[in-house]
Amino acid sequence: MTGKKLTGAGLRGQSAGETKLCTVGKTGSGLTYCGYDVADLSENATFEEVAYLLFNGELPTVDQLAAYKAELKSMRDLPKELKLVLQHIPADAHPMDVMRTGCSFLGNLEPEADFSEQNKAANRLLAAFPAIMCYWYRYSHEGEEIDCVTDEESLGGHFLKLLRGETPSELHRRVMDVSLILYAEHEFNASTFTARVCASTLSDMFSCVTGAIGTLRGPLHGGANEAAMDMIEKFKSPEDAKEQMAGMLARKEKIMGFGHAIYSESDPRNVIIKAWSEKLAGEFGDRSLYDISVACEEFMWDTKKLFCNADFFHASAYYFMGIPTKLFTPIFVCSRVTGWAAHVMEQRSNNRIIRPSADYIGSEPRTVQPIDER
Amino acid sequence: MTGKKLTGAGLRGQSAGETKLCTVGKTGSGLTYCGYDVADLSENATFEEVAYLLFNGELPTVDQLAAYKAELKSMRDLPKELKLVLQHIPADAHPMDVMRTGCSFLGNLEPEADFSEQNKAANRLLAAFPAIMCYWYRYSHEGEEIDCVTDEESLGGHFLKLLRGETPSELHRRVMDVSLILYAEHEFNASTFTARVCASTLSDMFSCVTGAIGTLRGPLHGGANEAAMDMIEKFKSPEDAKEQMAGMLARKEKIMGFGHAIYSESDPRNVIIKAWSEKLAGEFGDRSLYDISVACEEFMWDTKKLFCNADFFHASAYYFMGIPTKLFTPIFVCSRVTGWAAHVMEQRSNNRIIRPSADYIGSEPRTVQPIDER
Repeated sequence: MTGKKLTGAGLRGQSAGETKLCTVGKTGSGLTYCGYDVADLSENATFEEVAYLLFNGELPTVDQLAAYKAELKSMRDLPKELKLVLQHIPADAHPMDVMRTGCSFLGNLEPEADFSEQNKAANRLLAAFPAIMCYWYRYSHEGEEIDCVTDEESLGGHFLKLLRGETPSELHRRVMDVSLILYAEHEFNASTFTARVCASTLSDMFSCVTGAIGTLRGPLHGGANEAAMDMIEKFKSPEDAKEQMAGMLARKEKIMGFGHAIYSESDPRNVIIKAWSEKLAGEFGDRSLYDISVACEEFMWDTKKLFCNADFFHASAYYFMGIPTKLFTPIFVCSRVTGWAAHVMEQRSNNRIIRPSADYIGSEPRTVQPIDER
Repeated sequence: MTGKKLTGAGLRGQSAGETKLCTVGKTGSGLTYCGYDVADLSENATFEEVAYLLFNGELPTVDQLAAYKAELKSMRDLPKELKLVLQHIPADAHPMDVMRTGCSFLGNLEPEADFSEQNKAANRLLAAFPAIMCYWYRYSHEGEEIDCVTDEESLGGHFLKLLRGETPSELHRRVMDVSLILYAEHEFNASTFTARVCASTLSDMFSCVTGAIGTLRGPLHGGANEAAMDMIEKFKSPEDAKEQMAGMLARKEKIMGFGHAIYSESDPRNVIIKAWSEKLAGEFGDRSLYDISVACEEFMWDTKKLFCNADFFHASAYYFMGIPTKLFTPIFVCSRVTGWAAHVMEQRSNNRIIRPSADYIGSEPRTVQPIDER
């Protein structure tokens, strides 16, 4: 990198701190949380175990996990004031604005009094986000005031039950759990870095997560799975997909869900969610969206040597589970809050305020002219 | 800097981008906005002219300023849904949580549809923040549902009238105007950098400003003027101040309002607000808090060679104007939203997603053990 001017280049390749939480593109399949390969975790652990791992550095024992799940379960309901706020957010609001506002408002009612409460605050948000999302969605879109408490054991199952009002199948529970694991953590991505910059002023957990949600909202970060869904649902068949994608490439249109800023050969999360998407397709009874997705994958690899990232097969997987496209990125929040909060805790444990410099390219010194002489 | 390990050191001294908006510690008195010295602006311009400058790169003409002030004036009122949300935030909430939530909620009702609306969104927040702060404050603390519209020409006067319900004096209007100018912009400080990281994913203006508020909330960033106020109001006289501060230093307690991460000899904003604080003291009829502040300044310089930063004499100035201490940092928001929004616009104009790397210091690769064998 010597000699390359890095300013204005988004700090790419520059270290902004240390972490014990994650490696991206370095070891194993390419993504590890606290030393564990994400493929291993998605096969042999649950999302609650992963959340515990990120917050505590070690996987839980049987007793620790039982206590942790009971704690999360007890924190799922929303205060009535928050429900009232969600009722006043219109149906056409951006769902990420809803998540950001729900998180921020909750911080007024249940502030993190000091850092000894950081795990409580993180767990509260983790437990409450499915209800924030679903309460608003079903009130604004279906006119229903849902009960925010369910008897579902897992956070993934809880979300599916809140969304649909009926008990999810074992397969759906399992896929949602895997999905939440895959999205949980990804080193110093832009939203996590936002959370760390906020944490570096010693601000509270709710501020850090609120800021991270706002950053994830941007189309260069979250939302790729929504964009992939919008694309693939327009394709009538695998052949039609290839034909239309060729046209998109010819017109230099952006195709979402492929390639990655850090992975160069493949995204380790793709093979995992792809396999689950195929299982869901079999259960769904109509494989066409899966077959179309495979055709897209083949086409992009053959023509551009671009691979599917984590987002691409999430689109069909969520579709098969009946999840509305506009909730794809809010689900990302429900998962990534674990990584964000873990990074906040880590930043606090060895903090210096994050305050870079800028290169000035503006006007030379000048003096204010009287307004009537301008 | 060669050879110095910078990781984990808060990116200090590392450039994270280019800006035309501000220089800190480089030219003139040490702080310039778009080439104009902050001392020159605080003497020969108004806050609305400075906001216009930051958003447009040039000071306005007479006609431009009139049109801009009329636009801001038309945007001061709050939607009824936002008033309802503010009514449900308890009196003991952190006032910065209120500002963050008010900003976030407004983004649901009046979203920035695309970047062509960025000036409208920035101006809306600039115009609405005084009402967000004062509506909540007076409802929760005094049980009053205030009218959020006033006939005050300036934003500073508008804020004072909302807060106190009576027309402010010319002196108070002028000092509030100067104060808003002094806090408007300060290069890549942590809250502004948060706004730029958020903007770098192409997120919306409300998300960027919401995140910045959350970052400013931290005690290492905003809040120094509140801490200064809490300290000086405990001192009974200049002599008592020196004696008690000596004790604080001996006990190694942190004394807020002195020194600066970037300025090494003085903060150019101090001399300005100090002079206005003295004028206010004369009008107030009891100079003691000013005299105590001067004693603090002398003591810290004599014993530690530490100078007052912008925050220190803001404490007494705000006190003389009858502003409750807990609103000091929210006023900072009312001002700095101009700098934040200007940086968002600048980031968008030449964007690359801000995504640094991290140094991994965590566990070696390991495999998931069955839960009953952990």
